[in-house]
Amino acid sequence: MIRGTTRLIAHLGYPTTTFKSPMIYNPWFRRRGIDAVVVPMGCKPEDYPDFLRLLFRLSNIHGALITMPHKVSTLALADRVSVTARIAGAANGLRLAEDGALEADMFDGEGFVRGVLAKGQELQGRSALVVGCGGVGSAIAASLARAGVARLALYDPAAANAEALAGRIAAAYPGIALETGANDPAGFDLAVNASPLGMTEGDPLPMDPERLDPATFVGEVVLKSEITPLLAAARARGCRYQVGTDMLFEQIPAYLEFFGFPKPSVAELRESAAISY
Amino acid sequence: MIRGTTRLIAHLGYPTTTFKSPMIYNPWFRRRGIDAVVVPMGCKPEDYPDFLRLLFRLSNIHGALITMPHKVSTLALADRVSVTARIAGAANGLRLAEDGALEADMFDGEGFVRGVLAKGQELQGRSALVVGCGGVGSAIAASLARAGVARLALYDPAAANAEALAGRIAAAYPGIALETGANDPAGFDLAVNASPLGMTEGDPLPMDPERLDPATFVGEVVLKSEITPLLAAARARGCRYQVGTDMLFEQIPAYLEFFGFPKPSVAELRESAAISY
Repeated sequence: MIRGTTRLIAHLGYPTTTFKSPMIYNPWFRRRGIDAVVVPMGCKPEDYPDFLRLLFRLSNIHGALITMPHKVSTLALADRVSVTARIAGAANGLRLAEDGALEADMFDGEGFVRGVLAKGQELQGRSALVVGCGGVGSAIAASLARAGVARLALYDPAAANAEALAGRIAAAYPGIALETGANDPAGFDLAVNASPLGMTEGDPLPMDPERLDPATFVGEVVLKSEITPLLAAARARGCRYQVGTDMLFEQIPAYLEFFGFPKPSVAELRESAAISY
Repeated sequence: MIRGTTRLIAHLGYPTTTFKSPMIYNPWFRRRGIDAVVVPMGCKPEDYPDFLRLLFRLSNIHGALITMPHKVSTLALADRVSVTARIAGAANGLRLAEDGALEADMFDGEGFVRGVLAKGQELQGRSALVVGCGGVGSAIAASLARAGVARLALYDPAAANAEALAGRIAAAYPGIALETGANDPAGFDLAVNASPLGMTEGDPLPMDPERLDPATFVGEVVLKSEITPLLAAARARGCRYQVGTDMLFEQIPAYLEFFGFPKPSVAELRESAAISY
């Protein structure tokens, strides 16, 4: 129930028609009696800098969820940017700090990491391969670094992307052993597909599943189907795995903490959501 | 249920804490299956011109309800202003026309007029006294002129207010007989208190009830109690009357028509509203 006292969380992107977040957050706010609401706002890129500034001057604004095409441009508009968002090169959450500063953070990778940890896969001191160093791959790599991996391999068909990402991680986390140039998953504790491969029928696999050790945990970001061709192959080899939607649901508690709300369980969020994935 | 496709109706004012409209409109939208939502936005006066311009560039904006302190400044920000809003000197509704123009209208007086007509009091060719020529009095006078009154008396303790309002009405409706300078309700078909008198205990009455003919219909805008001292006196003399909240509820169908939604009955709105007045 929206009231005059309700705190707004703008969901900023363009276009808005495929947004799902309002149908996940709002039923949970209602269930918990939290006087807040997620409201989609279809802001065009050319209007975004000015609109964002004025939006955060509203007396009832609480924060913002940021999605395409604003994740990258948000970095330059925030007063403070987390290390994770800086490495990711993008932000998907904004809040007003008590001093009035606009703080940006990035939760895509955090959602991925929380999902992996919740499934019992440790990351501290472990090794990980991330295939695909675009927006989501960069975010996952940033969060894996934050989670304490000791060795991180980054692969992108555009090698410069992987090298630039490795450079940003090395600057913030000098203790991590970084590698670029190969997508061979052999010998890693975690292997992640953060590339678009699997979205289109007939795509090649992002890595060779024959090289997957059954002990390797395989993560996927593609949402097209629950079990993508990579996950099917990994499952056939006996690997544990994480599906793409887990990254989305697991990041919600991180967002809610960022906004200062009580932390829900993912099960509770899934149960109250007005959609199913 | 807010979705990515939901059309936004911004409720613009500052502060927002006492806003009631979301609790009236949103339950009705839900009941009718209309994919729209009223969202309070607490915009400060200094931000309003820029914010309004950018707000109406959002891809999912549908319209705006305007309240204090923006009703007057909205006139200069709209591309097209209705005659009623021009006379009232203020607007409380904004929509995007098909050609992209921002259109402003004013529904406070329309709500008052619809309520009076719904109670069987004709206005076409009749006479009316409006006591109080501030924002709400100007809006009511503008809507009475639009409804076809033949004679309109305007009174304000600041005589210049009444005279300026009479001048704006005369310019748009040259056929109306206009009077200013007296608050004597004798001989009018309709007598309206549009002044703040009655909001504070011990206020003098806005007009002398001894001069009210039992055939005169008495309208009130003060919301402090359902039956204000003026209405109590009018009722005692056998007059028909309209309470202050009727103006609020009766204007909602006018707003909804303006926004292009199906027209609800006031009874239906009251029934689905999540608040009671």
